[in-house]
Amino acid sequence: MTNTQVTLFQIDNYGPWTVTPEPRREADLQTLQSRLYADLSQFIGARDGYVFFTRFDNMIAVTNGLDREDHALIQESVGNRYPVTLSLGVATGTTPVQALSDATSLIQNAGSAQDEHRREILEGRTIDDAHRTDGDVQIAHFDVIDATGQYTDELNAFDSFIEIEQGYAALMRHMRRAHGSLSFFVGGDNVIVVCPDLERADYLEAIEHVESAVDVTMQVGVGTGASAHDAGYAAKHALEHCRANGTRVEF
Amino acid sequence: MTNTQVTLFQIDNYGPWTVTPEPRREADLQTLQSRLYADLSQFIGARDGYVFFTRFDNMIAVTNGLDREDHALIQESVGNRYPVTLSLGVATGTTPVQALSDATSLIQNAGSAQDEHRREILEGRTIDDAHRTDGDVQIAHFDVIDATGQYTDELNAFDSFIEIEQGYAALMRHMRRAHGSLSFFVGGDNVIVVCPDLERADYLEAIEHVESAVDVTMQVGVGTGASAHDAGYAAKHALEHCRANGTRVEF
Amino acid sequence: MTNTQVTLFQIDNYGPWTVTPEPRREADLQTLQSRLYADLSQFIGARDGYVFFTRFDNMIAVTNGLDREDHALIQESVGNRYPVTLSLGVATGTTPVQALSDATSLIQNAGSAQDEHRREILEGRTIDDAHRTDGDVQIAHFDVIDATGQYTDELNAFDSFIEIEQGYAALMRHMRRAHGSLSFFVGGDNVIVVCPDLERADYLEAIEHVESAVDVTMQVGVGTGASAHDAGYAAKHALEHCRANGTRVEF
Amino acid sequence: MTNTQVTLFQIDNYGPWTVTPEPRREADLQTLQSRLYADLSQFIGARDGYVFFTRFDNMIAVTNGLDREDHALIQESVGNRYPVTLSLGVATGTTPVQALSDATSLIQNAGSAQDEHRREILEGRTIDDAHRTDGDVQIAHFDVIDATGQYTDELNAFDSFIEIEQGYAALMRHMRRAHGSLSFFVGGDNVIVVCPDLERADYLEAIEHVESAVDVTMQVGVGTGASAHDAGYAAKHALEHCRANGTRVEF
Repeated sequence: MTNTQVTLFQIDNYGPWTVTPEPRREADLQTLQSRLYADLSQFIGARDGYVFFTRFDNMIAVTNGLDREDHALIQESVGNRYPVTLSLGVATGTTPVQALSDATSLIQNAGSAQDEHRREILEGRTIDDAHRTDGDVQIAHFDVIDATGQYTDELNAFDSFIEIEQGYAALMRHMRRAHGSLSFFVGGDNVIVVCPDLERADYLEAIEHVESAVDVTMQVGVGTGASAHDAGYAAKHALEHCRANGTRVEF
Repeated sequence: MTNTQVTLFQIDNYGPWTVTPEPRREADLQTLQSRLYADLSQFIGARDGYVFFTRFDNMIAVTNGLDREDHALIQESVGNRYPVTLSLGVATGTTPVQALSDATSLIQNAGSAQDEHRREILEGRTIDDAHRTDGDVQIAHFDVIDATGQYTDELNAFDSFIEIEQGYAALMRHMRRAHGSLSFFVGGDNVIVVCPDLERADYLEAIEHVESAVDVTMQVGVGTGASAHDAGYAAKHALEHCRANGTRVEF
Repeated sequence: MTNTQVTLFQIDNYGPWTVTPEPRREADLQTLQSRLYADLSQFIGARDGYVFFTRFDNMIAVTNGLDREDHALIQESVGNRYPVTLSLGVATGTTPVQALSDATSLIQNAGSAQDEHRREILEGRTIDDAHRTDGDVQIAHFDVIDATGQYTDELNAFDSFIEIEQGYAALMRHMRRAHGSLSFFVGGDNVIVVCPDLERADYLEAIEHVESAVDVTMQVGVGTGASAHDAGYAAKHALEHCRANGTRVEF
Repeated sequence: MTNTQVTLFQIDNYGPWTVTPEPRREADLQTLQSRLYADLSQFIGARDGYVFFTRFDNMIAVTNGLDREDHALIQESVGNRYPVTLSLGVATGTTPVQALSDATSLIQNAGSAQDEHRREILEGRTIDDAHRTDGDVQIAHFDVIDATGQYTDELNAFDSFIEIEQGYAALMRHMRRAHGSLSFFVGGDNVIVVCPDLERADYLEAIEHVESAVDVTMQVGVGTGASAHDAGYAAKHALEHCRANGTRVEF
């Protein structure tokens, strides 16, 4: 039974900061956003979590294995090294989207994303080590079958990108509506989805949905573990089996 | 008359590298991808260009102002500091997608993205300083009206994200089909579109299309310049006028 | 009684790599070295350790609080994200230099720093959590009294630098010879020294030695703790007392 | 005839910032300092300059090839992405230390390094492109002969480091006093010295001085060029000739 711990990271007062006193150079904003995300990825990844860039000013993470002290530490470290600060909300739920919903509310209740007085909120509960199990996290790693042959080596790079975005958008809406799952594009032709306990039939259905909706053909490797890394690494291996065996869904 | 110079950056043999000899930790791949993108953003941005993370293993840039030596330098610098290398194709065209198409072909003709022998291609032509004009680049900076009030402070962070992705996907397809433009989500609720010479009516139409297609309400600031930074910075200022005046399109 | 756990990080085959097939751009080497160090500082610092840039191709850390798995993880992460790899040796000792000596031997026994076949050594023992105490690490944080008034605002920046280097070199040799301590310049006018159990008299003597040897006047805050961060943070606070009270040594 | 353009970068009000409201985690300060330096190295290096970390809160660069706009741009970019700001002074001189001296004065005249009201000074003159020559910069790249065999593979890592620091300190003082040169340790066993027009005899004398003063044996490659990169890259090649031929000084 999954028990996903989800953390929402939200940059405090970012919109106003980007245009005060004047709009800032776009290339600098892109650099700051990407490097902040990369730092979170290293910190959270080293504790076997996964964080996704999402909207960059709002980033979603699966943080099974991180306790409240860990959250306080990364918040402090960012405050020491960046010109912006982060607010954090963390919660668990029966489905990933339920956990995220509660995490979001914790921050929203403390104040607007553009409330200049709301800074460095840290609210929520993490799972005690004693209550963690190997079934807490289920990760599904999707990719497009032979994206290189079908798109990258054939179409111009933007039309390849449109195809992959279509596949992502269709998968993301389906998995959210049908299963309360959170889907994230992670580069290339890869989408990582954080799921509750789903079965082979659920994944086959998702793949068929995407294929008929937007004509993008995907395969998926699924893994389960006590942490996002454990589940996700198992999912990567399962995906290699899809590639080797020509199958669509592997656990 | 726009004359967009577009560069495609493609990591050589990336797919195989990520799983050889074993799949690599996802958090490390995310960190590498984001920091590589951030480095390109600094290098290109300092020369008044814009680069967009796109698929991370394929990144698209507007490089008016960068010459062939500049391209060779960033390629060399990445090769010195990362465990991967980049191939680059650069071209100009009557529309941004035409330029990108030619840039893509230059790399595709040299070999597959997963051809282990294809490394550090550098092909294409840049615009001579003597032929550059203040009308070379048109940038449109879209954002969602009151995203903070409508989404960020109201919905859970993933449902906010879904709304913004819908708006992006609809805008991206429309601008590509109708105008040969390239659209990129750049964080928050912002989409930057690289356009040929478009008019107020074209932008109003695009906004109406997105609103009726996915019920997401956008506004846009448009700028023109000799470089992406010049055009984009003017677009940011125009967008501030939209916010101040409550208008939908500002030049 | 101190029980310092010291880790030596050594880049494998770095000298040859920097000149093969041709010498690499110096600015790129500096960037790679500094960012690799920064990554180690984040990883180790998040576990309450301290790492010092030292020679950049050889970096020394106080790693009380990091176990063998932690060492393996940072080694793997670097291998995934850099064009070089690290070998690590970790040991504990009655004095910091004894621990470092053993840590160094562990790597040296496995092969030369320029042996192209020696890669990613990981040898040594870390302290079990059960055996850690609050007296394990003693850190002394020295700085030059009124460096800003005496040097930075008065001399040219290189002559200021020479004065501070003189102070560092004198302190470093004295603390090594007299107390088996390891001293590291950490920027500004600050030197952090990793010590065994020393007393006020030892520190007063060190300060007098530096003053008479090179006419550089220092003060010091000393702290003790189970980790480098615990000890070092207490030392920083003690140094603030020196500044406030005009004293030379504070615990 | 050398005409070195030197820029001093000084972080504004850094000392107070590091302890307000409380002392900040040392590992975070080290990370910030190193990454700020790395960013300067990329920006300056891409324009064929060299920057040296020096004291980290004060960094010295050879900036032949960078104009005032370039200086303004890196200052702005840092202000957009870091929690601190930089003041810059740039000057040229008959010797490197003379240029640095003038650059330092430009900043000092505007206010103390710890004056909380002094922010983002930008003062000085750069060399017009029309006045640049291939003899503007002379760089000498020293290293310790067989440091790996003599030190790295034999002594513990701190005693190796002490030996190299001794060599550096002796060389640095000699080259400053005798030739108005600026010397910087750049990692490993390497020291890069920025010189006026010196001859073989000057370098042989410097090497003899270091050998008799501290018993550290060095060799040197010397290069000249219009920029630090041109001169420094030639110096690296010359140093390879020392290694290949067993000579002490090569041009």
